[in-house]
Amino acid sequence: MVVFLNYMKYSAIPTAQSIVQHCQAKNISNIVISPGSRNAPLTIAFAENPYFTCYSIVDERCSAFFALGMAQQLQKPVVVLCTSGSALLNYYPAVAEAYFSNIPLIVISADRPIYKLGIGDGQTINQRNVFENHIRYSANLKQDVNHATAKVLQYKPEWLSDRAVNDVQQEVQNYNDGQLNLALEIALTSNTPIHINAPFEEPLYETISVPSISPQISAIPADIDSVIDLEQHRNIWKTSVRKMVLVGVNTSNAIKDMVLEKLANDPSVIVLTETTSNIHHPNFFNSIDSLVAPIEMHVDTELEFEKLKPEVLITFGGLIVSKKVKAFLRNYTPKHHWHIGGQFANDTFFCLEEHIKISVNDFFSEMYLDDTNLKSEYFSHWNKIKEKYELKRNDYLEEIPFSDFLAFNHILAAVPDDYMLQLANSSTIRYTQLFNVNPTLKVFCNRGTSGIDGSTSTAIGASLASSSPTLFITGDLSFFYDSNALWNSYLKPNFRIIVVNNNGGGIFRILPGKENSNVFETYFETRHTLSSEHLCAMYGFNYLRANSSQELEEELSTFFDETDRPQLLEITTPTLKNDKILIDYFRFIS
Amino acid sequence: MVVFLNYMKYSAIPTAQSIVQHCQAKNISNIVISPGSRNAPLTIAFAENPYFTCYSIVDERCSAFFALGMAQQLQKPVVVLCTSGSALLNYYPAVAEAYFSNIPLIVISADRPIYKLGIGDGQTINQRNVFENHIRYSANLKQDVNHATAKVLQYKPEWLSDRAVNDVQQEVQNYNDGQLNLALEIALTSNTPIHINAPFEEPLYETISVPSISPQISAIPADIDSVIDLEQHRNIWKTSVRKMVLVGVNTSNAIKDMVLEKLANDPSVIVLTETTSNIHHPNFFNSIDSLVAPIEMHVDTELEFEKLKPEVLITFGGLIVSKKVKAFLRNYTPKHHWHIGGQFANDTFFCLEEHIKISVNDFFSEMYLDDTNLKSEYFSHWNKIKEKYELKRNDYLEEIPFSDFLAFNHILAAVPDDYMLQLANSSTIRYTQLFNVNPTLKVFCNRGTSGIDGSTSTAIGASLASSSPTLFITGDLSFFYDSNALWNSYLKPNFRIIVVNNNGGGIFRILPGKENSNVFETYFETRHTLSSEHLCAMYGFNYLRANSSQELEEELSTFFDETDRPQLLEITTPTLKNDKILIDYFRFIS
Repeated sequence: MVVFLNYMKYSAIPTAQSIVQHCQAKNISNIVISPGSRNAPLTIAFAENPYFTCYSIVDERCSAFFALGMAQQLQKPVVVLCTSGSALLNYYPAVAEAYFSNIPLIVISADRPIYKLGIGDGQTINQRNVFENHIRYSANLKQDVNHATAKVLQYKPEWLSDRAVNDVQQEVQNYNDGQLNLALEIALTSNTPIHINAPFEEPLYETISVPSISPQISAIPADIDSVIDLEQHRNIWKTSVRKMVLVGVNTSNAIKDMVLEKLANDPSVIVLTETTSNIHHPNFFNSIDSLVAPIEMHVDTELEFEKLKPEVLITFGGLIVSKKVKAFLRNYTPKHHWHIGGQFANDTFFCLEEHIKISVNDFFSEMYLDDTNLKSEYFSHWNKIKEKYELKRNDYLEEIPFSDFLAFNHILAAVPDDYMLQLANSSTIRYTQLFNVNPTLKVFCNRGTSGIDGSTSTAIGASLASSSPTLFITGDLSFFYDSNALWNSYLKPNFRIIVVNNNGGGIFRILPGKENSNVFETYFETRHTLSSEHLCAMYGFNYLRANSSQELEEELSTFFDETDRPQLLEITTPTLKNDKILIDYFRFIS
Repeated sequence: MVVFLNYMKYSAIPTAQSIVQHCQAKNISNIVISPGSRNAPLTIAFAENPYFTCYSIVDERCSAFFALGMAQQLQKPVVVLCTSGSALLNYYPAVAEAYFSNIPLIVISADRPIYKLGIGDGQTINQRNVFENHIRYSANLKQDVNHATAKVLQYKPEWLSDRAVNDVQQEVQNYNDGQLNLALEIALTSNTPIHINAPFEEPLYETISVPSISPQISAIPADIDSVIDLEQHRNIWKTSVRKMVLVGVNTSNAIKDMVLEKLANDPSVIVLTETTSNIHHPNFFNSIDSLVAPIEMHVDTELEFEKLKPEVLITFGGLIVSKKVKAFLRNYTPKHHWHIGGQFANDTFFCLEEHIKISVNDFFSEMYLDDTNLKSEYFSHWNKIKEKYELKRNDYLEEIPFSDFLAFNHILAAVPDDYMLQLANSSTIRYTQLFNVNPTLKVFCNRGTSGIDGSTSTAIGASLASSSPTLFITGDLSFFYDSNALWNSYLKPNFRIIVVNNNGGGIFRILPGKENSNVFETYFETRHTLSSEHLCAMYGFNYLRANSSQELEEELSTFFDETDRPQLLEITTPTLKNDKILIDYFRFIS
């Protein structure tokens, strides 16, 4: 670490120094700042210190998702810093996404001193614990005390001797150090968002050349993993002929190849992966909805179901996208459901038996201690369904007209190796799940809250924190919702966006019941005629367009070539055909 | 009210019917809806009922500010309705603004049934009480119970007889009716935001042609105003020779002319008004910063201060914008500070003695029971300062180059009579406060949180709820922040926007200390080169531009003429001169 002490400036405010020194000591180096005055002490302290990489983004909703995207890639905490007032509230959608997706987003808000809260001052809200419902820890720091603030804070007059003020300030510093240590360690060890609220009194812009404090920085010892006896689980595993492994959101390379091979070659095991699972094997089942749809529609006897229903369900990773597999497992409940690893285990199928808090690799090593496999038809039953729908899907693609469905097929075939693929909610991720995705891609989607509110910002943040080039695919509503994401000075020239524009929330067309409502177009689908062209002109993107399969293939053939600025490809698909084509797909393959 | 019963559809879900019937019974007729599936029962119930006027706006941050703008004008509650998940969190900036500005915003969120919370389902967050820090009441409704839901809600098997299920459902309905009555009455009587969270189980889209329930709707009797004895206050009033009346955010025509005349002609009284006070009299002091600046800079003796410092300070209305008057009153504390009327009284100057909860008109009628005025020089002392700065301001306007300051002078002189003027934060409102504003205008600004996050949306909502044509003036950062506001199908052709574009947060240039920071341009000012032209092309606005006084005067001469679509005028001012011109103004007039 090179620190150019000669050129450094520190905020004159002790708590600002302390926050910055804690972050540096704990290797938290990426800071996303939104402009403001109350946060000036921290803005100065971070931006003037070459250890930190700072980003300036005006719209706080975007800046928090941008930071989330960085943290998602780095798998370490990123700070978002804002001024007092409603600025902080604009972070909330990203905070909730971080909370449910286990991403360590560190929110730091500047606040007015406590005696200026609730008296009608400008840009002043009730910031302390404001994220209560979706935060792992809220550190409400205390305000520094000096002679000037001691008076207004109404300390007793006898405290106003130099020594007394120093004593009080020392107490404040100790308290704040304790809170900072705790909050940051929680973020570091639990992959969870935390909030630090720091009140600052004016003057806010004063700097000094040497830090005036040396905060007490400590690490909190990590819990030592308790040894878990998996004898009983192994007995169940070794005697169950129908085992399903269902993988949610998961980072690539998290699972050892050896484990994947064992699972792939065990005839009693099927592994269902989602696009966001980021694990691949020819024997895995990757388009869960395509796999489950024929079963939903066609299985005629209970006997058939007994063949397909798992005895043991193992889940790991984050949230599950596929609605069909949720419905299947809620109806055909496994005897045992164990969730492996991670901070939390969701009882998604109302049958969770145990959360086994060891690594996924360790768990399966235990299950495969001896190398024999149980005889079972389980894999082959499912594989027949898969082989059938894969053939039929090819036939279907041959016969349908240009549509969302066909566009996704073209796009996914064209993405170059080793790209990062960022997907918006919700039609984008759902369509992508229906196809085979190039196994060299790393795929991400904000599935914590499944919101349409910050996917573009997340993708841009992620692109900056990764060496892979990034393709972001989005629908039109989600793209226009987060249009301010493009108001960003850090865009890489190789950043790519594809907007599948069906002139509204096409996903609503596939929901049951829309026929009953003559208000459908206005209040559900939200029909519009907007294009992305003007946003591209405004924010310096090359704009490309495709309205047919042929145009799309042509555009895709050069879309990923090197350019001097980012590119956006807008694909216009027929609003009124997409829903039928999607619904018919499931019928066709069944 | 004409209801075409033949054409009506009702949601089959009892709680959805109940919410809609409560709103109708309480005359809450404006509903702003964001698209979603979980909120389908309410979307259908509101949109299919001709009693309600519904609006569809995708970005929830915008839709909540849009509803806030409507409620600000109507002075009655407006509903914003969203689906489950992070959608709700995007309402928070507007909810906080409503909370601090006393605007009855009714947030209704659809939620998943309770047994689907916390199990990893999509679009599911912890919605109950999520606005705890900034809401007057949160009604967490219960889910309707029928045979299907009774099973999953794990009621005891013996409850599953028809009668038992009906009994439980009746309890749920009674509870929900009670909550709805309470929450809506609070919004109606207290001018405050409330939140109603309603869990819905699938199927969500089913409708029936006749309502299946008749909810118990009641009004909660309003508190009868207690009689307040103002004898002592009148004695103080009648014997104090220096009385200051300071008016915050206030609706036009709220104060009787007779009261204004009495105050204006009392030599012991000065009335300080802000642009958002919406009261006018030649004897009132309307550019508070211009008035206080010379005092700040020049008053040399304590004696002088004793002449200017009030003995009694009366405040009414909402929050105060002027920082200079806050500093003045905090330094030169009046003996008595009474806040008149309203729900809350802020101790803005740290000397609040009493919140007198009667109407402003009644209060002053009491003070002026007899018609004699005290002899005093108080008004004339202040008036001399005013006369002096007004002359000097004219001289100053003659000599400065084109700039934010001069642009605001031109704009404010050009606004036609009877316009509604909506102002963004924060340079816009601060500049506007420096000039005389046409007294026929009605002026509004989101000063509850003083955020830059939703001013455009607020202005658009307000324009729809008012018969006056609307001019919205904004700075560039605030305008781009809320650019999604323009994604709105309800814009009136006479809606006008003026963007004063100084290529960044020019307001930061006037703050002390910026000289100390070489990170100023990036992290405070946030310099950019964006123009509004592309957004105008995207959203169907006529785009006009002015870069000099001459161009500005030309554009303004026709800007308010009738057009077939809304217009935006972008004024580019010199980034680096504005701050000096503003600071020099205060020196010049002093």
